[in-house]
Amino acid sequence: MSKERGMLIILSGPSGSGKDTILTELSKRDSNVQVSISLTTRPARDWEIDGFHYFFMTEEQFQEKLKNNEVLEYAKYGQNYYGTPKGPIDKWLEEGKTVILKIEVQGAEKIRKVYPDVISIFLMPPSMEVLEERLRCRESEDEEDIQRRLKIAKDEINRSNEYDYVVFNDVVDYAVCDLSTIIKAESLKRKRLTNKINEVMNNA
Amino acid sequence: MSKERGMLIILSGPSGSGKDTILTELSKRDSNVQVSISLTTRPARDWEIDGFHYFFMTEEQFQEKLKNNEVLEYAKYGQNYYGTPKGPIDKWLEEGKTVILKIEVQGAEKIRKVYPDVISIFLMPPSMEVLEERLRCRESEDEEDIQRRLKIAKDEINRSNEYDYVVFNDVVDYAVCDLSTIIKAESLKRKRLTNKINEVMNNA
Repeated sequence: MSKERGMLIILSGPSGSGKDTILTELSKRDSNVQVSISLTTRPARDWEIDGFHYFFMTEEQFQEKLKNNEVLEYAKYGQNYYGTPKGPIDKWLEEGKTVILKIEVQGAEKIRKVYPDVISIFLMPPSMEVLEERLRCRESEDEEDIQRRLKIAKDEINRSNEYDYVVFNDVVDYAVCDLSTIIKAESLKRKRLTNKINEVMNNA
Repeated sequence: MSKERGMLIILSGPSGSGKDTILTELSKRDSNVQVSISLTTRPARDWEIDGFHYFFMTEEQFQEKLKNNEVLEYAKYGQNYYGTPKGPIDKWLEEGKTVILKIEVQGAEKIRKVYPDVISIFLMPPSMEVLEERLRCRESEDEEDIQRRLKIAKDEINRSNEYDYVVFNDVVDYAVCDLSTIIKAESLKRKRLTNKINEVMNNA
């Protein structure tokens, strides 16, 4: 039986909604999941690992990649560039992997144009109070930064209606489970079972 | 929080694909599932219970219901009429139930026109050999009947591409689990979370 092409998934959500935690857990539980690592020119936070959370680079290095057409989509967010490296995604999809892109709302819009079959999931904080609390727990943020991020979060939540699914991240375990459920259900979509159905039909 | 409207699901699949077994199991596990019971003019098989598997009735009774506009869709299949009673469905949806209609491929087409939001699932036998075996196990069928049903099954499988999801019924437990997964994932669709999202946004 020939393998079905993998699924491409966008995961968006405001800063502090818990995207990294959720994706780390999901990767542990589902070995077929491949999280795409973004490029960014923003400075790494203390706990962040280069090549794991992001590929951290200078603006010059980022511009070089843009020029060489190695970036699928990018956006300037605050003072910093964020981009999705192009090469690996098609390779992983060809291998049947579930490829997850962690991207901003404006980037998601661009991906949909290139991959109309993409599945988009918005990670929602259970409330604005919880989101503010989570942002304050990050020691790296000052008050002005927190207020700016909260304002951006509200704008992003307002655009959650552009997404296929919404997962509330109240309890991490439940949110990870919801993500797994969406991935499993999407794999049962008729359009993703063409090979398997043809097998039954060829014997019909 | 105001309750979201329930989901309407169509389950189709050839005779012998195991729709009844799957739905009986699913109803046991998910108390929110409400299986709609069809009207039919075909004679009951030995094991079938009136008001559970079908509402069995004479053609005169069926025509009376049609005239009174109590049938959502109906089809003649072989010598017999099959129909979906209209009244209960909207009531159950209003109550937030997951309403499942077990209907033929031609009926599914009609339901989609009335309820464009309907989720359609095709229950697929693992192979034509298994399907034939299952049909032969039903003592009520004679050879001519089996061959006719196999021919109809092939035509139906050819139309499985009209469905949103395909569930293979090889092991009953897995198929029931797949159905539960689809129901859960569909409840995470953005369009079905309007009330919950508005709550977060009203505090934003």
